Amino acid sequence: MSENRIVDRKFSRELSSGTTSLALLAILARADEPMYGYRIAKEMSGNDEDIQLIKQGALYPVLKSLEKNGLLVSRVEPSVSGPPRRYYTITDSGREALERWQNLWESTCALMNRILGGDIHEQTH
Amino acid sequence: MSENRIVDRKFSRELSSGTTSLALLAILARADEPMYGYRIAKEMSGNDEDIQLIKQGALYPVLKSLEKNGLLVSRVEPSVSGPPRRYYTITDSGREALERWQNLWESTCALMNRILGGDIHEQTH
Repeated sequence: MSENRIVDRKFSRELSSGTTSLALLAILARADEPMYGYRIAKEMSGNDEDIQLIKQGALYPVLKSLEKNGLLVSRVEPSVSGPPRRYYTITDSGREALERWQNLWESTCALMNRILGGDIHEQTH
Repeated sequence: MSENRIVDRKFSRELSSGTTSLALLAILARADEPMYGYRIAKEMSGNDEDIQLIKQGALYPVLKSLEKNGLLVSRVEPSVSGPPRRYYTITDSGREALERWQNLWESTCALMNRILGGDIHEQTH
């Protein structure tokens, strides 16, 4: 059981590492204003609180990495209700990456669904 | 351009790390006999040679890791046409992991498609 949790955690972490970057870019590309971490995390979980690609705290390293690579920019602003917040905006490079990554995601999904559905090329040798 | 390739390679590597494990388990769960690396790689690419989740050489570390975690077992057998081949078989733990991982994959896909399609919960604050 504990063995299960270890392999599952590894799989879950691997699966979320790529999808989180893509989801962040997509959410920020559609936003009509800069967004801060908590709001982005809420958007990521959608209506379904049970499904979470990634915990909110794990979002920040991904945001930082995307910013370091020039796909996002951020600025810190004071908040009336608490500590200052860092607001993120997607860059032109980020929009271009989003388009390329979304294509790769769609190809990957199509292939995975084919493999998982069993509808793949039959080998005869 | 070279900058693009760096961010794209990172995304592609992240995306493939989880999906490859899942695809390997699915292919081996359906196989009616032990399979060796080259045949698994062929099955993974399906009919479409252009789409490759992962290069054949990169398959081996993933197979090794799945075996180390008890999800696969392997044995080496001589080949008439070349060097000996390592044949892989899925274990009961592997079949159980496949079921759990496939569920997580499907939830992730549904959520990603919702995020990428823009059909997500509207935040009003």
